[in-house]
Amino acid sequence: MYCGFTQPRDSLCVWTFRATHNIQDVVTDCLSLFFSLSLSIDVGTWRSKALADSTEVMKISESIKTEDAATLSVNPSTAYRMLADFTTLSEGDVVIQNGANSAVGQAVIQLAALRGITTINIIRDDGDYDETVQHLKNLGATIVCTADYMGSAKFKELISDLPAPKLALNCVGGQTSLEMAKVLANKGVHVTYGGMSKRAVSVSTSALIFRDITLKGFWLTQWTKDSTVEERAAMLSELADLVEAGKLRTWIQTYKFANFDDALHAAVNRTTKRKVVLLME
Amino acid sequence: MYCGFTQPRDSLCVWTFRATHNIQDVVTDCLSLFFSLSLSIDVGTWRSKALADSTEVMKISESIKTEDAATLSVNPSTAYRMLADFTTLSEGDVVIQNGANSAVGQAVIQLAALRGITTINIIRDDGDYDETVQHLKNLGATIVCTADYMGSAKFKELISDLPAPKLALNCVGGQTSLEMAKVLANKGVHVTYGGMSKRAVSVSTSALIFRDITLKGFWLTQWTKDSTVEERAAMLSELADLVEAGKLRTWIQTYKFANFDDALHAAVNRTTKRKVVLLME
Repeated sequence: MYCGFTQPRDSLCVWTFRATHNIQDVVTDCLSLFFSLSLSIDVGTWRSKALADSTEVMKISESIKTEDAATLSVNPSTAYRMLADFTTLSEGDVVIQNGANSAVGQAVIQLAALRGITTINIIRDDGDYDETVQHLKNLGATIVCTADYMGSAKFKELISDLPAPKLALNCVGGQTSLEMAKVLANKGVHVTYGGMSKRAVSVSTSALIFRDITLKGFWLTQWTKDSTVEERAAMLSELADLVEAGKLRTWIQTYKFANFDDALHAAVNRTTKRKVVLLME
Repeated sequence: MYCGFTQPRDSLCVWTFRATHNIQDVVTDCLSLFFSLSLSIDVGTWRSKALADSTEVMKISESIKTEDAATLSVNPSTAYRMLADFTTLSEGDVVIQNGANSAVGQAVIQLAALRGITTINIIRDDGDYDETVQHLKNLGATIVCTADYMGSAKFKELISDLPAPKLALNCVGGQTSLEMAKVLANKGVHVTYGGMSKRAVSVSTSALIFRDITLKGFWLTQWTKDSTVEERAAMLSELADLVEAGKLRTWIQTYKFANFDDALHAAVNRTTKRKVVLLME
């Protein structure tokens, strides 16, 4: 059994999320083993055995790497739903997002690019800026810039040839969420799924009244609770196919369980921009 | 011809809005006169004659006072639409609003009370606080308090016996709009129709993500453009009936056209909380 855990923010707690399993399918395959994803929430990551209804797990290709499978139902799923559930996006439409180098942000870039959707990606200007820009461009990002640049006249010029974004994805809050709301198209939707700056989400009165933009929030856990097994399976199947085809990648750093301390150190102290995954093998 | 004008905010400009007319209906009544409301935008207030299609005006009872008719298609209409278009409200539901002593706020209180909807009304603590509270209570307000009080533990206790509000109406922005978002029910809707504090609308990340609240804006002018003549006539007819029955009142101060300077002074310097209406008779 394997597990992925995300970067803890403020404490040393470890957030376990989803697990992939090798499952004995006693009903249909008579003790044959298959590689699977759990379709329900928190089925239990820190365990070596679990009893699950056959509708609660989904068989996936063993050619998908464990670490990709372990994170598939978290970040790429969040990206998938936010691109699907808030507005209708077609080829040529524009999406703007902050925290674009997050695992969700990287999935947004790739899923959007596959559909011909332009992405404007806002990141922090840290020591690895050039590397991050190059990485996001390689994934299919159209524009990558810093939050400071977004407030400038040059930024307005840069995006002036593009259609105004129909969708803004916010995992930061504060000033960059306000700036994204400013450039949204009339009737655009602004979706918050995180608050890394720990600042409230702000939007101008005029954007709400005169441009009819909408602010919403997204929480994958709630979506998972509200959705049917069929809906979850359809989404994960599509994402797994993209991973297998090499069209959806996640920036991951793996550690063996024996190196738990190193993994925790990397995650807590953010010595890596990659998603830290612990392989319990 | 008569006109109502609203309080200018930052300049001495006079905002003319809607007009009531005595109209010669040459088609159906052969030069009979009737008292009417315009159903379209800006048909022209500062004029004594206008040619209108019969579908663009609506006959209303002459027992409605001119000043009520002149403001009917602005503030009460805004209140009507905000109560109707953003969520489903039933008897016993709760609506919270700031700027509750505005003309829109007063209409919200009355329209809500007529349907058994509880209102929590936030106002500024100015010199006429007691008078304002009494006036709003007389109109049917359930709770009236100041913006400062809203942030207190006592406020939370005060509203703890009520269902959480399904709808928040914001014409102020800044801190009070944030506080209103905090007390909204899960899946509640927060509608901005003004920004009197000139501060951005803020909302916590957690309210968006974990309580699935939505922020929207409302602009009556846009609604009027988007709606059909039939929709506008149905709403105004219902509002006019309520006014005629004494169930919907507006706090108005009228001036004759000869006292234009006094009217302008009252409106610009806010020497009155009432809506200033100029009677061009």
